[in-house]
Amino acid sequence: MTASAASLLPIGVFDSGVGGLTVLRALRAALPAEDFLYLGDTARLPYGTKSASTVSRYALQAADRLAGRGIKCLVVACNTASSVAIPALAASLAPVPVIGVIEPGAQAAARATRTGRVAVIATEGTVRGGAYPQALAAIDSRIEVAQKACPLFVALAEEGWTDGPIVEAVARRYLEPLFIGPRPADTLLLGCTHFPALVTPIRRVVGEGVVLVDSAETTAAATAARLGGLGLCRGQGIGTVRLMATDGPERFARVGSVFSGEPIAPGDVELVDL
Amino acid sequence: MTASAASLLPIGVFDSGVGGLTVLRALRAALPAEDFLYLGDTARLPYGTKSASTVSRYALQAADRLAGRGIKCLVVACNTASSVAIPALAASLAPVPVIGVIEPGAQAAARATRTGRVAVIATEGTVRGGAYPQALAAIDSRIEVAQKACPLFVALAEEGWTDGPIVEAVARRYLEPLFIGPRPADTLLLGCTHFPALVTPIRRVVGEGVVLVDSAETTAAATAARLGGLGLCRGQGIGTVRLMATDGPERFARVGSVFSGEPIAPGDVELVDL
Repeated sequence: MTASAASLLPIGVFDSGVGGLTVLRALRAALPAEDFLYLGDTARLPYGTKSASTVSRYALQAADRLAGRGIKCLVVACNTASSVAIPALAASLAPVPVIGVIEPGAQAAARATRTGRVAVIATEGTVRGGAYPQALAAIDSRIEVAQKACPLFVALAEEGWTDGPIVEAVARRYLEPLFIGPRPADTLLLGCTHFPALVTPIRRVVGEGVVLVDSAETTAAATAARLGGLGLCRGQGIGTVRLMATDGPERFARVGSVFSGEPIAPGDVELVDL
Repeated sequence: MTASAASLLPIGVFDSGVGGLTVLRALRAALPAEDFLYLGDTARLPYGTKSASTVSRYALQAADRLAGRGIKCLVVACNTASSVAIPALAASLAPVPVIGVIEPGAQAAARATRTGRVAVIATEGTVRGGAYPQALAAIDSRIEVAQKACPLFVALAEEGWTDGPIVEAVARRYLEPLFIGPRPADTLLLGCTHFPALVTPIRRVVGEGVVLVDSAETTAAATAARLGGLGLCRGQGIGTVRLMATDGPERFARVGSVFSGEPIAPGDVELVDL
């Protein structure tokens, strides 16, 4: 396929569920002319508590499904899948480029920190895999990284409890240890697509002096740069979005509306089986 | 196979994850001579947010695996799977008997209530399916049932946060509406295997006057009665337990210890693929 024919294909976006809609939103803002094909593996979410081998297997199945529909690149919006499956996905989809959220998030955090101390909050799987500390060390080996798994943040965001005393108390319990002591972090990397939904209570707990970094916008910028470099960007027009999920279009629509920033109707979501 | 040969087979216990270990514990107490084969579908948990058709499909796969190893009956410890998949499981495993937790739990709640008003807390899937209201109506059509999905309870129990101000605040938000007003419930049915882990804060919120019912002990009693009626009970001895999970033996051991009441080592858990 020529680059000009490939440029007409949609961008595939894959996530374990609806959290990746925050990344889709940033992608649409950065690349308004592009078509998007989003697949949330809602039947098997969450990935954050699963082993690396299981997450890799699920991610490969989802990527194959998107590739089968014809995509010009794959954005892995899920931090957990990005942290363990990018090499396998890139090998499976080649020559279609695969872009994860870890590297762009780490780049943004490295640019943001002044003290060289970065805190990373993520799922159990992402923390256990150590992808963010490795990516930050590759950028600047002097950066100190403290990690904390925050699984309840995922459940709170999915429940639509995005602020209030309960969420703030949970945030305090998870986050205060990262910002207390002689060497507190000055940058907090939100290493899970669910966490931007809780940004208001997180900000209250960490204070104004801490820079919050999420991967959505930097991943969108990295995607635009990659497509531009390959001559695969669409020039003009307003792109479309197709949403697919492996389970429960009703729940996808209800919970997804929290993350996408606009209402989603169950009829907008195509059910697919992996 | 004769009843006496079949009686030597283990009892299969199936759950979406580790919560069913509360049911396994009750089964072992009621039937100490029996061998047990427990399968937690940790790769695909939680079932509580998934559609009925997906939960049924997963439950059938898990039951087939247990049946393939040879079991004399199947106990479905997962409320969500019990609420949607018992007819399909019974058809698939016949003549091996299949026992779910819904019917025994509803029987216990119907016996406990004095005012005829029962509150049921469960996962989204169990609440949506309406299995408990249906089971209670079949026992006594005058019983009034109020339901509430409490998905954060699952996440809190899995995180090991089983008491303290955060859990109590969540419990207050979920439960108080069920016990306020002119017709408060006098019985609370814990319709998810995770919830007994949170019994202390739940008790504080609902007060001493409300009867808490969980399905574990009544399901164990129902299983003993069913096996006895079929001549399938083992008489003597101390039975064994084999644990299997579809993902993450380390996490199964760590989180499962919260529910099983005794420590579990990762080496005790066999990894199986469905």
